[in-house]
Amino acid sequence: MKLRDLGEFPFLRRLQQRVLRDARVQVGIGDDCAALFLSGTTLLTTDTLVENVHFRREWTTFPLLGEKAFAVNASDIAAMGGEPTFALLSLSVPQDTEVEDLDAFFDGFLRGAGTCNTALIGGNMSAAPCWMIAVTLLGHALHGIITRSGAQLGDDVYVTGTLGDAALGLRVLQEGQSGAHAEEAKARFLCPTSRIEISRSLATQHLATAMIDVSDGLLQDLGHICEASKVGAEIEGERLPLSPSYCALRGEREWDLALTGGEDYELLFTAPMTQRATIAEIAHATHSTITRIGRVTTHSQGIRVHAADGSVYITPQAGYDHFRAE
Amino acid sequence: MKLRDLGEFPFLRRLQQRVLRDARVQVGIGDDCAALFLSGTTLLTTDTLVENVHFRREWTTFPLLGEKAFAVNASDIAAMGGEPTFALLSLSVPQDTEVEDLDAFFDGFLRGAGTCNTALIGGNMSAAPCWMIAVTLLGHALHGIITRSGAQLGDDVYVTGTLGDAALGLRVLQEGQSGAHAEEAKARFLCPTSRIEISRSLATQHLATAMIDVSDGLLQDLGHICEASKVGAEIEGERLPLSPSYCALRGEREWDLALTGGEDYELLFTAPMTQRATIAEIAHATHSTITRIGRVTTHSQGIRVHAADGSVYITPQAGYDHFRAE
Repeated sequence: MKLRDLGEFPFLRRLQQRVLRDARVQVGIGDDCAALFLSGTTLLTTDTLVENVHFRREWTTFPLLGEKAFAVNASDIAAMGGEPTFALLSLSVPQDTEVEDLDAFFDGFLRGAGTCNTALIGGNMSAAPCWMIAVTLLGHALHGIITRSGAQLGDDVYVTGTLGDAALGLRVLQEGQSGAHAEEAKARFLCPTSRIEISRSLATQHLATAMIDVSDGLLQDLGHICEASKVGAEIEGERLPLSPSYCALRGEREWDLALTGGEDYELLFTAPMTQRATIAEIAHATHSTITRIGRVTTHSQGIRVHAADGSVYITPQAGYDHFRAE
Repeated sequence: MKLRDLGEFPFLRRLQQRVLRDARVQVGIGDDCAALFLSGTTLLTTDTLVENVHFRREWTTFPLLGEKAFAVNASDIAAMGGEPTFALLSLSVPQDTEVEDLDAFFDGFLRGAGTCNTALIGGNMSAAPCWMIAVTLLGHALHGIITRSGAQLGDDVYVTGTLGDAALGLRVLQEGQSGAHAEEAKARFLCPTSRIEISRSLATQHLATAMIDVSDGLLQDLGHICEASKVGAEIEGERLPLSPSYCALRGEREWDLALTGGEDYELLFTAPMTQRATIAEIAHATHSTITRIGRVTTHSQGIRVHAADGSVYITPQAGYDHFRAE
């Protein structure tokens, strides 16, 4: 059935029945606004996925798309040391959208939200020439917030997981490659893993001095930390965490995508050298990889990537900017 | 200059400098999330304007578009008896967008926000095939919230301002009419007046039993109140508040657009009969028109519009649904 045959309001009533009642919510979906009792420090972020800019329908599935729309926002909350709590979803879709596709999208979105104990409290639906998914996510920061501006000279620089897989996955999709490695890279692009658990451990123990999520590429996002903290950074190329798929498809000495590829949604953070053992324990406890990739230097040194033999690695570009001509 | 020549990050840095520092904001634009101390009842709403669905660039100006993007969200906050406090803006625009047009859009948006003492605390920019403006607005409800579900049998039904002008303005634009009346109707479509002041008075004195803003047409929005409150309503056609422009262009006996036209963003509310004098005082104090247009009946009676001679007025359609085929 097409959405134009069902209508917006009947669809929203159906959705309302799927969203669980939540004691924290005074008014949820179905009035002019949602109403909540909030206290302490509330985090807010908003991020949008646009068809044919961020995704192609033929590359993904609607549940994966819904899950990703939630995950990219959850990643921003994690990057501040917080945990997601409530979501608003502004969904613009063509009039001939199939109700089944919308249902599948909400399956994924609500599954992602559910794993973070996050309630969908409101939103908006509108006609549009293509799918545009704007999510606003709230979070709470029980243990204080971790901004981009606290990195200190001599701190270690860490990143979670592996780098460059999402950018590689995008290339795999564009070039139509197949095989197990290609599938793995694709999966990383189509839906990132949220790093809420690692973030919680870092926040609880006040370990990270600055943090950001890698959405526009390591160098660009590290640049944001350096700019905000008025520091520089030195990255050791051989320490960059590369997945087996990355090494197989791209090569372990090809650091370009790991340094500049967007959408990995890993956490990039700085921490004092004295915390190395504690951070290793967190990696162990969360069954995750957390890799020390370099150290914080002075602002005037900028950001440098060097190889073990001391040679400086020159990167082809800084990272992703939506509007810059390539 | 095109946005693709300036780049996203330089544009955001410029914007950051235009947004005033606000003591209520712990972290504003420029980190992964905004961070706020919030307490009491927080209201949240999100609404989107899509190019060629909600507006055409050749019909409006970028400052008016920015102002409207804020106003339609502020209207939802007012409809709950609250006042806007903080805004997030997710803006998706074509890569060849002129920086001057974006600046003009932000002029309007920030002007609208400024009149409501609302701070822009975050957002997102992305490339897209057309302009898509998704706003999330927070508000506080100091005096409790006014939902759609409190209308009582025998209550009066009121509406602020005049009805049908925005729908008329849209027709004027579509048909290219000119003249003073046409200009007035156009202005109502291109940027609605927010009714924050009336809402504040109603909320402070706990006068309204149910409230909604008229975004999809009087009958449809009254239908939402009736559904939520399990009541019906009787509207007296001759009491519908029509502007001089409406009477001149459409005729004072043509109630169709006043009943079903969207985007007026007036407040529609119910209140006990005992409050008539107080509500008249509010209209006087706020220099606004508040018109009693009917009364709340039983659920089984549904919604009926009748003329002074007792005849029932049959409306051609219920109101606006984004996805329903016309």
